[in-house]
Amino acid sequence: MTASAYAQLEDRFRRVGLISGIQAILDWDTATMMPRGGAEARAEQQAAIATLVHREVCEPSLGDLLENAAHERLSAERADNLRAMRHRRAHATAVPERLVEEVNRATALCEMAWRDARPADDFAALLPHLEAVVRLVRERAQAKAAALAMSPYQALLDEHNPGLTDATVRRLFDTIETFLPALVREVRDVQGRRPAPVPLPAPVPADAQRRLGERLMRALGFDFTHGRLDESRHPFMSGSGDDVRITMRTDENDVLCGLFAVIHETGHALYERGLPAAWRWQPGGDAAGSAMHEAQALLWEMQVARGRAFLSYLAPLLTGFFGAPVDAANLARLVQKVEPGMIRVDADECTYPLHVLLRYRLETALFDGRLDVADLPGAWNDAMERLLGIRPRNDGEGCMQDIHWMLGNFGYFPSYALGVTAAAQMVAAARKELGDLDAAIARGEFTGLLGWLRRNVHAHGSLRPIDDLLRGAVGTSFDAAALEVHLRRRYVERAT
Amino acid sequence: MTASAYAQLEDRFRRVGLISGIQAILDWDTATMMPRGGAEARAEQQAAIATLVHREVCEPSLGDLLENAAHERLSAERADNLRAMRHRRAHATAVPERLVEEVNRATALCEMAWRDARPADDFAALLPHLEAVVRLVRERAQAKAAALAMSPYQALLDEHNPGLTDATVRRLFDTIETFLPALVREVRDVQGRRPAPVPLPAPVPADAQRRLGERLMRALGFDFTHGRLDESRHPFMSGSGDDVRITMRTDENDVLCGLFAVIHETGHALYERGLPAAWRWQPGGDAAGSAMHEAQALLWEMQVARGRAFLSYLAPLLTGFFGAPVDAANLARLVQKVEPGMIRVDADECTYPLHVLLRYRLETALFDGRLDVADLPGAWNDAMERLLGIRPRNDGEGCMQDIHWMLGNFGYFPSYALGVTAAAQMVAAARKELGDLDAAIARGEFTGLLGWLRRNVHAHGSLRPIDDLLRGAVGTSFDAAALEVHLRRRYVERAT
Repeated sequence: MTASAYAQLEDRFRRVGLISGIQAILDWDTATMMPRGGAEARAEQQAAIATLVHREVCEPSLGDLLENAAHERLSAERADNLRAMRHRRAHATAVPERLVEEVNRATALCEMAWRDARPADDFAALLPHLEAVVRLVRERAQAKAAALAMSPYQALLDEHNPGLTDATVRRLFDTIETFLPALVREVRDVQGRRPAPVPLPAPVPADAQRRLGERLMRALGFDFTHGRLDESRHPFMSGSGDDVRITMRTDENDVLCGLFAVIHETGHALYERGLPAAWRWQPGGDAAGSAMHEAQALLWEMQVARGRAFLSYLAPLLTGFFGAPVDAANLARLVQKVEPGMIRVDADECTYPLHVLLRYRLETALFDGRLDVADLPGAWNDAMERLLGIRPRNDGEGCMQDIHWMLGNFGYFPSYALGVTAAAQMVAAARKELGDLDAAIARGEFTGLLGWLRRNVHAHGSLRPIDDLLRGAVGTSFDAAALEVHLRRRYVERAT
Repeated sequence: MTASAYAQLEDRFRRVGLISGIQAILDWDTATMMPRGGAEARAEQQAAIATLVHREVCEPSLGDLLENAAHERLSAERADNLRAMRHRRAHATAVPERLVEEVNRATALCEMAWRDARPADDFAALLPHLEAVVRLVRERAQAKAAALAMSPYQALLDEHNPGLTDATVRRLFDTIETFLPALVREVRDVQGRRPAPVPLPAPVPADAQRRLGERLMRALGFDFTHGRLDESRHPFMSGSGDDVRITMRTDENDVLCGLFAVIHETGHALYERGLPAAWRWQPGGDAAGSAMHEAQALLWEMQVARGRAFLSYLAPLLTGFFGAPVDAANLARLVQKVEPGMIRVDADECTYPLHVLLRYRLETALFDGRLDVADLPGAWNDAMERLLGIRPRNDGEGCMQDIHWMLGNFGYFPSYALGVTAAAQMVAAARKELGDLDAAIARGEFTGLLGWLRRNVHAHGSLRPIDDLLRGAVGTSFDAAALEVHLRRRYVERAT
């Protein structure tokens, strides 16, 4: 007897999932362990394995199986998994191989040019490369739009967040723009009347910071029999369900920066680790997309760890660590300090969504043809002034600061703002169900909140489209109201 | 215009080579970095990638290309590479997939049974599993014998050492048996009349041992921009040409054991690193087989590092390291001590080939049907008594000590003896060409010897069959005469 089409698909996608897990370990190795001289060979290995995966997913017989499986009687979850398979296949086959290669080549050149152009503050040197990338990614977006019956920009969003609509994103950013710039000004006003925070003692050796990071990871629920902490130039999470690895970057003069990044990556790791084991290596067992991934990370880093409850738990830990008293109120002033700055990755919780909003406005304009790449610097600087009240002195701290566009990652930035929003919604919902969340957090008890996330989010993998998933967890789709309430309570009322 | 069949083959095998490089990094990660809880997922990843590689090599169209390429005009080196491709393909396609899976299943079960049976000294518990493995590997050997037109045992040898003949191996072991047991008795006699060595100071912390290991690696020519040293339970080398990684196991109470293992693995690493860059990722660019790989490792560990010249270089290093005088003559008594023991991996330079000889005699008898698996313990113990003059007290220190047969690796053990032999031949040849090798070694200058190996061995990859390669380097095929001369000079005359 032949296995059902669906069963054959599970076999095939299982192999794809396993190979993707290998890709994740290679990426981790590249950033943490690989000797410098191995870089070229590694790039070739990564290209070879990417080609293998692409071919597996694009294989013609896989299309037949997907068609046949549609006529089989499947449980609801298998039907969901089948949808996730279709999504993966649709994106892979929508773009001709020629174009995939052209994009890869153009983004590799653009990244190289950017590595020189950014420190030299030379947008003119970058321009032709970025123009080529935008042109090719537009072509990719159009090819996907045709295949997936959606707008080109939505097709890009859909790469990172299956099922997310253009309209949801637009509505969210429109709302953020209505309240956040004014709220930031109000917070600045409030904070201007209060004492300035006192910096923590420095320097602190890297390995002491790392031990403290591990201590916090354990407290949050990270299981070191299924993961690691290492160092790398930029912090990240990699790996998959049973072996989740995060990294930190330590700066001897800034303990908090390293620690909050550890908490952020731990949020990513807890999500991966909580994905449904029964669907391991299947598309339906993957995370629900980058917005939900960022939401998990930002929930712990921003909602939890920058709140007064957590800081009252952290202060005695730091006191023991420094051997000198660390005051929770001063800690709050340090990590809740709001100050518009040029650089997104250094931004505080209040101004961060405005950095994302700016990028969203500009990348949609680039894709609609309303903005030429050549006009990007001026448009960027004007938008910074409008949204944050400051103007970059050069393009290095302006439109050239992020790597995303250089790599052709348009449609990714919204994930950060969607994540901030969903995190606020999830904590509000968990708070309703769990009662006094802050009291538990102040005691260093995080299992209640983690359990809520496991049940309501992690356990569903990507079996539900992201909008359904969020609705199931918090009762509504993406809605910035919870974010506004949260920011106002923490930064104006100083209540959390 | 279509690319030539040969050019297409280079493309296909390049992908296979790159993926094999990924497999090597995964193996390394499994032994050094992977958290314990990732083991199951890793096993699945390794199986998935092995299946992919197997499929690439067995693809029917690859067979057509190999046939067509045979009619194309190729340079001598390309023709050699084509031969190496054929070898890879012939072994992969000779065995039906059903049998590959049966062997994998049986060896996995046998290894599990062995992990319990060895410490419990329970051969009866192992017996049915080992019988199954031997039966299936015999079947594999017969399938390969039919496809490759050679004897079943030669087909197994050929898996690890392309082109090595049955007759070469038999002649070598016959010769070793004629002189080595008597030589060991003679050496024991000589050493019995000399003072006993004094042990080195202990304990020595692991990280200090590791720094010393790195220092020696650098001295021998290991390039840390293209490699790493880490710790693992058993020392090994993994990786490929541009990123070669070795590991050590440190024992606080035995510095020398860890250091000599580092030197052994460095020998493996220098070989990988010296393989021809122009043939990177091609079958012809691989090492020439396990015998030559072991020869490279044993050349540095045994021929070089256990000699008086090297020890006179090492003694002052150790003196600085221990902060107490270390005497070169005592060092020599420590590392040149000859004493028949039960365990192969702990054996000294003189008795080691006898351990290998014993395994060769028994595994050929198992394959010829002259020996039943059930009679292995008695046959093992008799052979130990005959060759080494000692008799195991139990099967844990007898026929169950090695993992090789449990994994179905019959035909591998000869590589160790071939390696010992070739190492002696190579050092003798290098000595002739380079003049006073010992004076250079005593000064810590290893570039002359390494250069000789690079030119005469490493640079040829597996473009030549191993016999041709050795003949090109030293003038003859495998010949135990150089080994006998070497052992006599070092252990009887005490001249090196």
